Formats: sequence, C-alpha cells, structure tokens
Amino acid sequence: MQAYSIFIERVKDIHRLGALQGHMGWDQETLMPMKGSEARSDILSWLAAERHNRLIDPEMGLMLDSLEQDKTLNDDQRANVREMRREYDKAVKLPSEFVASFAKAKSEALLSWQKAREDSDFSAFQPQLEILIAMTKEKIAYYGGQDNPYDMLLDEYEVGMKVSDYDPLFAGLRSRLVPLLQKITIAQETNPDPVLPDGLRFSIESQTEFCIKVSKAMGFDFDGGRMDASTHPFSAGLWPGDTRFTTRFDELDPFSCLYAVMHETGHALYEQGLSKDFSLTPRGAAVSLGVHESQSRFWENQIGRTPAFWSIALPWFREHFPDAPDWDPTTLNRIANTVSKGFIRVEADEVTYNLHVMLRYEIEKKIFNEDLPISQLPETWNSMFKEWFGVKVPEDRVGCLQDIHWSMGAFGYFPTYTLGNLYAAQLLESMAEDLGDIDEVITSGDWSSLLQWLRPRIHEQGSKMTPSELIEFATGSPPSPEPFLRYVEGKYGSLYGL
Amino acid sequence: MQAYSIFIERVKDIHRLGALQGHMGWDQETLMPMKGSEARSDILSWLAAERHNRLIDPEMGLMLDSLEQDKTLNDDQRANVREMRREYDKAVKLPSEFVASFAKAKSEALLSWQKAREDSDFSAFQPQLEILIAMTKEKIAYYGGQDNPYDMLLDEYEVGMKVSDYDPLFAGLRSRLVPLLQKITIAQETNPDPVLPDGLRFSIESQTEFCIKVSKAMGFDFDGGRMDASTHPFSAGLWPGDTRFTTRFDELDPFSCLYAVMHETGHALYEQGLSKDFSLTPRGAAVSLGVHESQSRFWENQIGRTPAFWSIALPWFREHFPDAPDWDPTTLNRIANTVSKGFIRVEADEVTYNLHVMLRYEIEKKIFNEDLPISQLPETWNSMFKEWFGVKVPEDRVGCLQDIHWSMGAFGYFPTYTLGNLYAAQLLESMAEDLGDIDEVITSGDWSSLLQWLRPRIHEQGSKMTPSELIEFATGSPPSPEPFLRYVEGKYGSLYGL
Repeated sequence: MQAYSIFIERVKDIHRLGALQGHMGWDQETLMPMKGSEARSDILSWLAAERHNRLIDPEMGLMLDSLEQDKTLNDDQRANVREMRREYDKAVKLPSEFVASFAKAKSEALLSWQKAREDSDFSAFQPQLEILIAMTKEKIAYYGGQDNPYDMLLDEYEVGMKVSDYDPLFAGLRSRLVPLLQKITIAQETNPDPVLPDGLRFSIESQTEFCIKVSKAMGFDFDGGRMDASTHPFSAGLWPGDTRFTTRFDELDPFSCLYAVMHETGHALYEQGLSKDFSLTPRGAAVSLGVHESQSRFWENQIGRTPAFWSIALPWFREHFPDAPDWDPTTLNRIANTVSKGFIRVEADEVTYNLHVMLRYEIEKKIFNEDLPISQLPETWNSMFKEWFGVKVPEDRVGCLQDIHWSMGAFGYFPTYTLGNLYAAQLLESMAEDLGDIDEVITSGDWSSLLQWLRPRIHEQGSKMTPSELIEFATGSPPSPEPFLRYVEGKYGSLYGL
Repeated sequence: MQAYSIFIERVKDIHRLGALQGHMGWDQETLMPMKGSEARSDILSWLAAERHNRLIDPEMGLMLDSLEQDKTLNDDQRANVREMRREYDKAVKLPSEFVASFAKAKSEALLSWQKAREDSDFSAFQPQLEILIAMTKEKIAYYGGQDNPYDMLLDEYEVGMKVSDYDPLFAGLRSRLVPLLQKITIAQETNPDPVLPDGLRFSIESQTEFCIKVSKAMGFDFDGGRMDASTHPFSAGLWPGDTRFTTRFDELDPFSCLYAVMHETGHALYEQGLSKDFSLTPRGAAVSLGVHESQSRFWENQIGRTPAFWSIALPWFREHFPDAPDWDPTTLNRIANTVSKGFIRVEADEVTYNLHVMLRYEIEKKIFNEDLPISQLPETWNSMFKEWFGVKVPEDRVGCLQDIHWSMGAFGYFPTYTLGNLYAAQLLESMAEDLGDIDEVITSGDWSSLLQWLRPRIHEQGSKMTPSELIEFATGSPPSPEPFLRYVEGKYGSLYGL
C-alpha cells in the first residue's frame, strides 16, 4: 500500500497543476485585463510544462508498471491506475518543449479568435488556427496515429470512440432528424412560433437575478461556487468546494442567458457532486466530456425546455421582467423550443443541434484525414451549411468563427456534444422508471429528487468506470441512440402537432 | 554569462510560483466562494513548499557562491544576485515542512480572523493567532535571532531596520506629534470640523464610478489592471500587465472608499511602473514595503488630502453624488483631514496614524521580546489606546481585531507604514524643487508630471538599490523624519490655524 500512497501523492501534484491551469484559464476568460495576456500565456505554458514533466517522470512509468500487478488494490485505486496509465502513455510520446509551445499557441490563438470573431474577420484568426492545426497534426504524429489521424483526436475526448463508430451513428440520426425537421418546417407555415417582441429590453441585472434563482432551484450551491460572465459560457470545477460557471448576456433575449445558465449549472452540479474523498485524482474527477454534456443537456433541455418548467419559472420571470408580455407557460415553452435553421450551435434547438455537430465533425475529418487547406474553411463551412440547412451564412462571425473550441486546440471535441444528448435522453427514461412522471416532479417545484437520482448513479462515480460502463450502470442498458430519437420525435411531434 | 542565464531561469520559476501564490491570495480575498477555503489552504501551502524547495536547492547556493565572484555582471545582475542571496540564506534555515504548514496556518487564520472580526469575538481568533505566533517564534529560532527576536521580523519587511533604529525614531516623532495633537484638540473646540450629514447614502455604484475616475486621473491603466472589493483593501502586482487593487465600501462614507482607492492606486502605480525588462526577477520588483508605502501615502495624503485635489475632484463628486450638500473644496478638504482620536488605523488622519503604528509596534515587541500571553492582547491593546488616545475601545472589532496583518502572519510589518509616511514627505519636498509648486500642478488637473517624476526615480529602479540608497538616489538626501514633521506641522497648522 505504501507504493500506492507515493503514487497518489504524485497524482495529486499533477492535478494541482491542472487545477492551477484551470484557474488561470477561468480568470483569463472572465476578469483578466487586456494587457495581462502575454504574462498569462507565459504562466499557462509554464504550468503545462511542469504538469507534463511530472507526468512523464520515468518513476511514474515504473510505479504504474508495478501497481498494475498489485492484486490488493480496490476498484477505486485501480481506476486511478488505469486513468493515469492512459495519460502517461500519451504524454511520454510528446516532448516537453512541444507541450509548452502548444499551450502558448493555444493561449495566443484564443485571444486572436476573440478579436477575429468580434470583427467577423476569419483572416485575422487563420494564421493562429493554421499553427494550432499544424501542431495538432504534429501531436497525432507523435502519438503514432497516422492511419486515421482523426481517430486519435476523437479518442482523446471520449475514450473508445472512433470515426467508424461515429459515421454510422451520425448517419442513423440524420436519417430520422432530417425528415423530422422537414415536417416541422411545413407545420410552422400554418402554426407559426411565437416571437420575442422587437426592441423589448431585459436588463442584465434582472437576467442575473432570474438566472441565479433558476440555478439555485436546480441545486447549485453558491457557497461552493460562482457565476460570472464571459464571451463563451463554460463551467470549471476548479477546486473542491469551488465550482465556477459563466454565462453571457443579450439584452434583447433573456432565453440566451437562461439556457446557458441551465446548461452550465448542469455541468457544475456534476462537479459539485464528485466525491471529495477522491479529490485531485481521476477517481474524483468527471469521466468524460460525453457524460459531462449529458448533465448539462439534461437540465437545459429535458428539464428547462418543458411546459412543466415554465409553470414553475413563470412567476419568477414575471417578477424580474415586469415589462414582458403576459405570456403563459405554453407560449414561453414554444419560444424556448422554437425550431429554426439558425446559424449558432449553442442557440440551436434539439432537432438541429446534432446537425450543427455533424457539420463540425465532417469538417474536422476533412482537415485531419484529407488535409483541407485552412483558407478554404469558411467556404467549406458555408457550402455544407447551405446544403444541410438550406440557408446562406451571412458572415463568419455566425459561421466558422462562432465556437471557441478550435481556438483552444480542441479538435475532436464536438461529437461528444451529441453523445451527451443521447446519454441525457437515456438517463431521463431510466429516471422516469424510478421516480414516475418527471413532468410531475418538475411541476412540484422541488427538483431535489432529480439531483439525488443523478448523484450516486453518475456524479459520485467519478472515473471509476469507463463512460459506457457508467451509462449502463446508471440506466441498466448500454448507450443507445433510441431513447433520444423517441424523446425528440415525441416532444416535437406534440409541440408542432405532427 | 551562461551561468547567470541558468540562474535567472531558476529565479523566474521561483517568481512564477510567487505570482501564483499572489494570484490565489487575491482570488481568496475577492471572489472565492466560502466552501473553497480548504482547497485554497491546500494549494497555497503546496505553492509555498514548491517555491521554498526551489529556493533552497543546493545548486542555487552554488550558483550564488559563483556569481558573487563574477566581475563581469552589471549592476542589474548584481542586484538580482544580492536579493536572491538574502532570500536563500533565510530560506535554507527553514525546513520545507515548516514552510508548508506555516502557509496553511496563515490561510486558516485569515478565514478565522474574518469571522472573528465580523462577530467582534477575539476568542474565536485567539487559537489561530497563538498558532501563528508560536510558528513565528519557531521561525525566529530557525533564523537564529534569539537575542532580540523582534529584530528578525523587522528586518524581513525593511532590510536593515531594527528595534534600535525604530525606538529613537518613534520617540522623536511622538515628541512632536503628541503636542501637535493636543493643540489640534484644543483648536477643534472653537473651530469644529464639518461632518457628513447623518443618514445620507452614497450608493456603491456611484462610489465605484467616482473612484475609478480618480484612479484614472492618477494614471492607473485599467487595460493593465482591475479594481475589486475586499474586506481589507490591498494591491497586488500579480503579473506584468496585470496589477489589481481592491477597495471597500461604506454607503454612509464615500471618503473611506476614495482614500482606500487613492492609497491602493499609489501602490498599484508603483507595480505598473516596474521595468518589464526585468519581470519575474528581484530587479523588476518593488524594493521594500517602506518604499511601497511611500507611493500609496504620497497619492492618498500629499495629493488627495489637499484643497488643490478637491478643486479638481469637486465637479466629479457633484456629478456622482448629486444629493450631497453643496460643499466647497475647503470644506471637503477639512472633512478629508479631520483629526480625530478614532479607533481605526486605516481611517486615521496623518497626525494620529503614526501613533496607531507605534501602538502595534510596542505590542509586537511585547509579544516577541517579552512573551506577552496572547489572551492578554485585547486588554494590552485597550489600555495602551486609552493611555495614548485618551479613549476607551468599545469592542475588539475596532481594536485588536481591526487589521488583517496578524492573521497573515505579518508581524514586524506595521513600522514600514511610518517609514512610508516619512519617505513620501521627503519625495514631495524633492519633487517640488524640480516641478515647482505642487498645488499648482494638482490644480492644473493634469497630474502626469507627478507620475513621470516618480517613474525613473523610484518605480523603474525596482530593487536595483537598497531602500535607503533609493531614497537618497531619488531625493539627494538619506532618509530623514524632518520633511515629514515639517509637512505635517505646516499642513495641520494651516488647517486649524495654529
């Protein structure tokens, strides 16, 4: 057991450096003054190199070799060994200088993207993006994933998922979602969606208060976390007892902020529910992006975009936005679920959302498997968008510059969003078997049983199991797209009377 | 030169860890949610140990030995060797475990102090304070400063200053300040100070806007820094291009916030003016607390508490506080300079401020040189305060619990505040010789020549010289209390018509 204790102290040091990276990243996105960017790049790159050097320490390799043979370890300890092995094997392939310069390039690209998006000027971001992609290809080469380079990236964000898994999954989803979208488009002609009145302003202060109320009702503990503003909403489980999420504000559209908050609170509840007994180790950390996204999408969509939610939230809405029209829950829910061929992924409805994901997946496949020149990225994006959505992208700000991910070097990340949608629907079906009609729970106004259901089945498990094992543990069935398709066809069928 | 480059890379790593400590400390004071405190103690303690381990690395000692013999180093490089030698010599005497547990104890004491001060309950803070003092005595023992233990602490905050320096200095000041205070008290009977009207509220939003305007006029660059709120105002030169300061708000008293902001902006201007060419090394860092305090006190008092300042700030004041009485600059200046036997050091006027400092100095001397039992601290404080100020302290919140310093283990720190006052007055006299009448500069509304005078003489010099060398470099004379006594007697003589 002493060998394991020494190992775990090193694992904690690695996680402390990771938490510092997370904290400095959070600060960069929320508070940092403009002129701090150079020093921020320096420290992020330094932290990345420090973390990397500790991970690739040959003693870490020897410890892993030895602990993998240790039959006395329990399941929690074995999970830590398994996850550190995976990290170690990848890390030893990357030279420290590469890791440091990649971190620096990412930090610089992020700032360049922010400016480029503001000005809707892809050419201002292109050089930094080209550097990131070249470095990502370099990384793939270090990993030795030359046959299907994109697989290496997909596996980084959701273990075990490859192009050969996603291609048929996405094709299957597309074959049911595209006809659904067509039916809805036809229905909208005779049954138009209600809209927000032109020019009505919803103050940032009122949006903040309203959203904090919703976040608290979901169960977020503000004594152990914060909400701030940033360009792109995100959540960060920085430290035990200190989980922070962000949102953004649009004075003309309170739904943008509300659903960002419900989404990020979903992520943050997962972080707050991780077991503190295993802090600073993989066992005490979220298992995957797909599972993380299932938590955010569950609260944002399965709970937040329902008439039941609005029956509870309407009085709060009226209190904070007294100038808004006298909507009823059904109308608010229609507004919140309006299906549209919009440009922005994070504002997309549940029918088109996965099409947005697939578009990015196809483009990333072209970049990494077919060497698409980056100068052609806007054109490729816009022509695929036209083909799938039937709409012309007016400017890159709402096209290929909209997402933060590429500026952070996160290629292969987007498909986990669709996995999150599928897992969320599967969790909802399973939860309903245990708790009965979920609409009734929501309408009661006391949502604690929902969180209490998720806590032991998902949150407290950390990385004890693999993602697919965890979904099977929580729901009794392996991951499947069927619950999502049942859910989305049922929901929109009833909303649009199909 | 290669030896120096390797040395400086290590020095930068040590400073990176110090900057991370500073950042996590800033975050703890301004934003951190309550439940994050345990993890914050952990990371602060870990960073302290990491920093310490790098400092005491035997290779650092060998490098210093060798670089001290290197005749090719220039003055800047020699300053880095000199300052790192001092840090190294102290650090090698402290065991790493001690450093880590001291950092942890400080972080816990800080939280305990916050609560104790809120409840005005010294007994709630006493156990943590006893631990800190016991550990500080342990530290003194490690340093080998048993003869006059308090000297070790004084030297940590202002190199070269000892009890044998402060005792006569303070006695001399007291012999002129106490009679001045008596004369003022008598004058106040026939010439009472104007007061803030009862119950008038100054909104936090307006105070924020007004104070940001003043801070900008002083020259603070908000693109390279921020202002936030915290219990105890402080400033932190966290990273090049990222200097943050804090203030506090009292809705009944806008002067509390204003002068905290002018004070902290003074500190922050020093940090923003340090030479970026020497970032993350002592040469690029502030030289001492006394010099730092001279910058804050210069702006707060020599500039901010003058009729000239109020002639410029009055229109801003009227704009942001339209409900305030129709005061003129003279009245506002009298309010800002009201001499009172108040309880709170940070709100004290320039006549009593140094008496507050001396009280803490005498108590610290008792604690470290005479083993005063900590349970007697409130009683000792209160009886000395009664003796010196003639007033009874009603509760510990405004007595021995008022300052953050002891909860941070900063014993020996307070006397540097008085040094700051002395240096500031000396800088003002010297500045007037170069720029002419300073009141005229202030009244012009363009204060850039003041900052431009300080930049090359103080800020850009970093730690190139020792504190007293620097004051002589800037003013042409070694440090002396006379300019301060001339200043304070002249100013208050004219204010109260003595």
